[in-house]
Amino acid sequence: MKSIEWIGGKVRFIDQTKLPTDEIFVETDDVAILADAIRALKVRGAPALGIAAAYGVILGTQHFHSENSQELYEALQQSASLIAQTRPTAKNLFWALERMRSVCRLNLHESVERIKQILLDEALRIHAEDAQMCAAIGKHGAALVPDPATILTHCNTGALATGGEGTAQSIITTAFEQGKSISVYADETRPLLQGARLTAWELQKHGIQVTVITDNAAAMVMATKKIDLVVVGADRIAANGDTANKVGTYNVAIIAKEHGIPFYVAAPTSTFDIAIASGALIPIEERDPKEVSEGFGKRTVPEGVQVYSPAFDVTPHSYITAIVTERGILRPPFADSIRAVLQESSGHTV
Amino acid sequence: MKSIEWIGGKVRFIDQTKLPTDEIFVETDDVAILADAIRALKVRGAPALGIAAAYGVILGTQHFHSENSQELYEALQQSASLIAQTRPTAKNLFWALERMRSVCRLNLHESVERIKQILLDEALRIHAEDAQMCAAIGKHGAALVPDPATILTHCNTGALATGGEGTAQSIITTAFEQGKSISVYADETRPLLQGARLTAWELQKHGIQVTVITDNAAAMVMATKKIDLVVVGADRIAANGDTANKVGTYNVAIIAKEHGIPFYVAAPTSTFDIAIASGALIPIEERDPKEVSEGFGKRTVPEGVQVYSPAFDVTPHSYITAIVTERGILRPPFADSIRAVLQESSGHTV
Repeated sequence: MKSIEWIGGKVRFIDQTKLPTDEIFVETDDVAILADAIRALKVRGAPALGIAAAYGVILGTQHFHSENSQELYEALQQSASLIAQTRPTAKNLFWALERMRSVCRLNLHESVERIKQILLDEALRIHAEDAQMCAAIGKHGAALVPDPATILTHCNTGALATGGEGTAQSIITTAFEQGKSISVYADETRPLLQGARLTAWELQKHGIQVTVITDNAAAMVMATKKIDLVVVGADRIAANGDTANKVGTYNVAIIAKEHGIPFYVAAPTSTFDIAIASGALIPIEERDPKEVSEGFGKRTVPEGVQVYSPAFDVTPHSYITAIVTERGILRPPFADSIRAVLQESSGHTV
Repeated sequence: MKSIEWIGGKVRFIDQTKLPTDEIFVETDDVAILADAIRALKVRGAPALGIAAAYGVILGTQHFHSENSQELYEALQQSASLIAQTRPTAKNLFWALERMRSVCRLNLHESVERIKQILLDEALRIHAEDAQMCAAIGKHGAALVPDPATILTHCNTGALATGGEGTAQSIITTAFEQGKSISVYADETRPLLQGARLTAWELQKHGIQVTVITDNAAAMVMATKKIDLVVVGADRIAANGDTANKVGTYNVAIIAKEHGIPFYVAAPTSTFDIAIASGALIPIEERDPKEVSEGFGKRTVPEGVQVYSPAFDVTPHSYITAIVTERGILRPPFADSIRAVLQESSGHTV
């Protein structure tokens, strides 16, 4: 299943807020509609946000008709700015926007039609590279999975969250495809239940044994169900390895450490933000309190009571056993291993 | 507000599943209806379950008409058995049933009418004692609360859960009434959201500043919001101090320890089960998976996917800073302090 794709002049994506009961695809050629969809989490997942951002730039510039390439760049900037304001935490979104800006700037001497083609090629390349990254993360990470394995995961990191087979989830599906006996506990992941709605839906399609638990049951499951490892995704990783990911990840990391269970983060290198020294500096999105107080079409918090709903939390690097990237497995000290992996990279990610 | 009361031949209770939007009271003289209400969590909270169990025995025996006191005892046993099958974890329920059985056995030489009066007196005494216990727990525990204090709690431990002002929550409200500046973070407490629906509703009525968070945000809140202490209730406490409480309590205990935050358990001594050496032996109720998969009238887990929904977890005693009882504050080693407090007790609780 492709959660997002470019279909000639339009972006097509599955509306993830309607899963698991309804599989509804949305097509749009309007960058504002795409930005709203990102804000509403119809499209979500850090790597998928990078892809959506790149396609958003195409939507915002494809109908540009002047012959002035500088004006095209300004139109691109406007679309990029619209998308940049949707969700502040995922690094991949800003990384993809910067790639699109950069390739435009480098080609301003070309004709507008040519630049538009170069931009589309770049967006498609970001998507294709992401699929390759997913496969590489799956391959590297599967080596960490014993046979049999019982794995706990949080939120959704599968095809829905990426342009390929996922990040953390790619490790699970790759190990399964290698013939390993895999059983997964999926945290339901309040407030928006990506674990219950999306991860369970994807793993069921793969034929992998999955059990949904409330986030509250994670400690009991780790204490009593012989969990071999925890693997999660990441929205932004600071230079020292501190990792912003879906709220509740830090809870799981602490609980895993307390039970002596390895805790792995899986993410493409585009998730690293070496301009940020530590997790304390990662901007954390706060979501609409109604996602908590009226999340299920029914009020569950009394009127007038305050709700605090951070979308992400930061797991300090000391809780992370290893970070699985498309270029291999990084081990502590992460400040060194992250710098090293980025230095050997193509330059796009730095 | 009285969450449960005896009103001459009937039990009256607020249907907690309808809160916070609807304040609906149920009256019944039928022990089977009361048992169903307990199973459905219309009446809930370990101490309140003890009170409900005692009143249930009255409902089941009040219309008994033979003059044979042994037959009355058998009718009592039948009601007690019906109630005992509702929820397996809360010790207080079994403790109250045993008190009712015991007082009946001791008075079998009396007339049936006299025994019925003695049973009613005993049930009312259990209720009145619980209110006193709540006040005493509040008084002892408030000494642990600094001024100002930011407190995190899980599930509901207030008037709704007890026959008085609560256990853990009584500590919060007592400290507030002493003039301390109190702010509370209430975990929403999936799957049934007792924190969001009940604790927030009660604290709002008290005029105490309360903020609802998802259970997933607890680690982030402890890392960033200067939480002074965590206080929770208990459904059963083993001889060594291991504590069964609402699922997610163990998560919170681990996270609190990791942040150097004191973690207090508040419970009447009727919650202790010294026949059970450690938490591993406490029976843990599993709830209907639909409370997770369709908890809000809308399916959130794909059809065919397994759900594991333990109602409780067990927090090992090593995570507990102190246990606040109506007889004072118990400190580690709990095996000793629990034995000591029960030895000085009146005999009802052992």
